[in-house]
Amino acid sequence: MTASVTPKIPNGPALVITPEALLQHWQGHRRLTRRVIAAFPEDEFFRFSIGGMRPFSAMAIEMIGMAGAGMRGLATGEWAMVDDLIHHSKTPAPGTREEVLHLWDEVTDRINAFWPQIPPHRFQEIDTAFGQYEGRVYELLLYWIDNEVHHRGQGYVYLRSLGIEPPPFYDRS
Amino acid sequence: MTASVTPKIPNGPALVITPEALLQHWQGHRRLTRRVIAAFPEDEFFRFSIGGMRPFSAMAIEMIGMAGAGMRGLATGEWAMVDDLIHHSKTPAPGTREEVLHLWDEVTDRINAFWPQIPPHRFQEIDTAFGQYEGRVYELLLYWIDNEVHHRGQGYVYLRSLGIEPPPFYDRS
Repeated sequence: MTASVTPKIPNGPALVITPEALLQHWQGHRRLTRRVIAAFPEDEFFRFSIGGMRPFSAMAIEMIGMAGAGMRGLATGEWAMVDDLIHHSKTPAPGTREEVLHLWDEVTDRINAFWPQIPPHRFQEIDTAFGQYEGRVYELLLYWIDNEVHHRGQGYVYLRSLGIEPPPFYDRS
Repeated sequence: MTASVTPKIPNGPALVITPEALLQHWQGHRRLTRRVIAAFPEDEFFRFSIGGMRPFSAMAIEMIGMAGAGMRGLATGEWAMVDDLIHHSKTPAPGTREEVLHLWDEVTDRINAFWPQIPPHRFQEIDTAFGQYEGRVYELLLYWIDNEVHHRGQGYVYLRSLGIEPPPFYDRS
């Protein structure tokens, strides 16, 4: 049942996950989130809400802003500041689902471009994301991924409530 | 801005996250999920639904089953089989929110007890969880955590829809 495929790290710390595998894990999540965005009818994407929560478009634009503005800081330590993000959030939001998907794909490329620039020791460094959120770099990154999974789960409820079958959670292809 | 705290791993692979830090990350998520369970009124925990989805009690019991039955397999490779899980799921589900919280706490202890038994090389091994789901051990584990975050996000929508303020997402204490 168990096929042991063990990297050779004698006496080293346990290798939980490699940077490359974490990138693939995240991009797999992002492919699924993209399908959830695409599953919404155009108008409901910007309008539908339950319990006073934001429409899914606002959640998707938050994910785009976090990863899009944050990847440079994650890789290099040169962060966009929170004030810039707030200013950015006051610029007109994308008006169509297609425009959001286009921004989504730009961020996909941006993540892939910056990822190889993350130095091996970087994940364990303590840094302050956007000049405000302090933590080890792996914690900052996991927060973005968890935030995406959290809000995407909420998008599933919106879709079900609209009578739309969401894409399967386990499919990250 | 950047305080560099770099573990010494000369020429080794990048250390993204240690096993101990991953345990703390998961248990932080589990503390938040516990607060979401506790935030539901007793009857709505077992009854409230949107769009034909399961009540949050069923999602919580799924999380308990996955981690509770899976921790031994994760650590040792000796898995409970899917058929056993199905049989287990036919046994009477907990009838009160307090009983679910009690099971939750038992699983917290079970995770903490098994975690130190995970050999350092284990995370990169390929295994078949519950005799059915093949992947590297870190992938199987991240799937459980992501599944919990996904469904907990849905619980947030249920709470908002019930007019209840959910616990803050960022607080994992």
